[in-house]
Amino acid sequence: MQKPLILVTNDDGITAPGLRNLVLLMKKIGDVVVVAPDSPQSGMGHAITLDSTLYSKKMLAGTADTANEEYSCSGTPADCVKLALQELLDRKPDICVSGINHGSNSSINVIYSGTMSAAIEAGIEGVPAIGFSLCDYKWEADFSQASDFIIDIVQQALENGIPKGVVLNVNIPKLNKQRIKGIKICRQAKANWKEKFDKRTSPMGKDYYWLTGEFELLDKGEDTDEWALANGYISVVPTQFDLTAHHAIQELNSWEF
Amino acid sequence: MQKPLILVTNDDGITAPGLRNLVLLMKKIGDVVVVAPDSPQSGMGHAITLDSTLYSKKMLAGTADTANEEYSCSGTPADCVKLALQELLDRKPDICVSGINHGSNSSINVIYSGTMSAAIEAGIEGVPAIGFSLCDYKWEADFSQASDFIIDIVQQALENGIPKGVVLNVNIPKLNKQRIKGIKICRQAKANWKEKFDKRTSPMGKDYYWLTGEFELLDKGEDTDEWALANGYISVVPTQFDLTAHHAIQELNSWEF
Repeated sequence: MQKPLILVTNDDGITAPGLRNLVLLMKKIGDVVVVAPDSPQSGMGHAITLDSTLYSKKMLAGTADTANEEYSCSGTPADCVKLALQELLDRKPDICVSGINHGSNSSINVIYSGTMSAAIEAGIEGVPAIGFSLCDYKWEADFSQASDFIIDIVQQALENGIPKGVVLNVNIPKLNKQRIKGIKICRQAKANWKEKFDKRTSPMGKDYYWLTGEFELLDKGEDTDEWALANGYISVVPTQFDLTAHHAIQELNSWEF
Repeated sequence: MQKPLILVTNDDGITAPGLRNLVLLMKKIGDVVVVAPDSPQSGMGHAITLDSTLYSKKMLAGTADTANEEYSCSGTPADCVKLALQELLDRKPDICVSGINHGSNSSINVIYSGTMSAAIEAGIEGVPAIGFSLCDYKWEADFSQASDFIIDIVQQALENGIPKGVVLNVNIPKLNKQRIKGIKICRQAKANWKEKFDKRTSPMGKDYYWLTGEFELLDKGEDTDEWALANGYISVVPTQFDLTAHHAIQELNSWEF
């Protein structure tokens, strides 16, 4: 039987430890092709490159530490997936996995996440897709603790299929393997960022800002991804790209135009 | 009575005719502050600037052709809204309007749209928000035809309020005023882009790509934004930033972890 073809991408760039870890895990399951940004693309949301050119470079691959094939791309995570599916892969992948992101993409962070945009782009194009994120921003984070869970989730997705129009947003708490209690299917917690702009003046006398902020959880539900992560579970949120707020249609139909 | 405070932004940049038209319309309704990108940001999705600095410049304003205050910003549309709400505005705006975009943001385009991301960012921060797009990509598009409808939609939103957790995605067909049949509340049509990468070689011998593609409508429903636009209506889709696919939770709970 043909091994499943697994497309791996991310938003932290092709050299990021989170991606390198994911590649090694996916090689246990199937044939792996990497198409990932040549530089960090965190916070890129679902950006695509419209007014500029895209470069792609074939990297050394096929060794113990690398995928069967690897390509870096000058574009965003969503660009990488488009380029992979249309240009670089010989056949449609059986699944696309994005990550492992260095840092959480739970709750409202899904909106800003390049990791999840790559997965969503694959989903839009009809490829089952999962974004993985570890709740540890450090470059030297320990990605090994959740290895068995990640393999389990990908294998279940390959066996059961992912519901149509849905991609999975998987977040992993920063815990040792023994302390991870299991996997919970969740909804996206209501939350936002309380921004703070750190205003400074450049050596040339020009004012500029750094965007910083504090995460503000606005949701006490015990069925949310934030609750699961705070209580030692890996969270899996089914995430959709039909953004219609169906429940609001009736109310809007009462407006008098 | 205090006039409503209206924040205007976009993704085509502060000089774009679509924004300049929207400013003039909004001045008929309230006090207007513009915070918009200093350069085109189309296709930026919900990108935010994390690894770089942000600049903001106070522009000439208060004339017949301009808002009460105007600021350009070096960041993305979502950055502009964050900066406006946290740093530049004296009080919370009563509404944020984004656009008028040069080109459609109907159906799946909402995912890639900087125009809509700005509106969504405002929505996340609790400000009622509407994105406006004209289905005409030209810089010299005629934005005047839909003026009455735009004012009507904004006034209704100010009077009725927009349902919580929802922002409006308004698309306007490229038609003369007399031929616009009215306003329809719709759902987002299922569609995707059939990408084509136009591969070229630079004068230096390096291969590169341009991302191009064809829009592929996968939805025959008569309750969609695409149907409304094709049939002479302005489409209004209530759009949410809770991306949870609630209908998929039960199915995923049957997976055996």
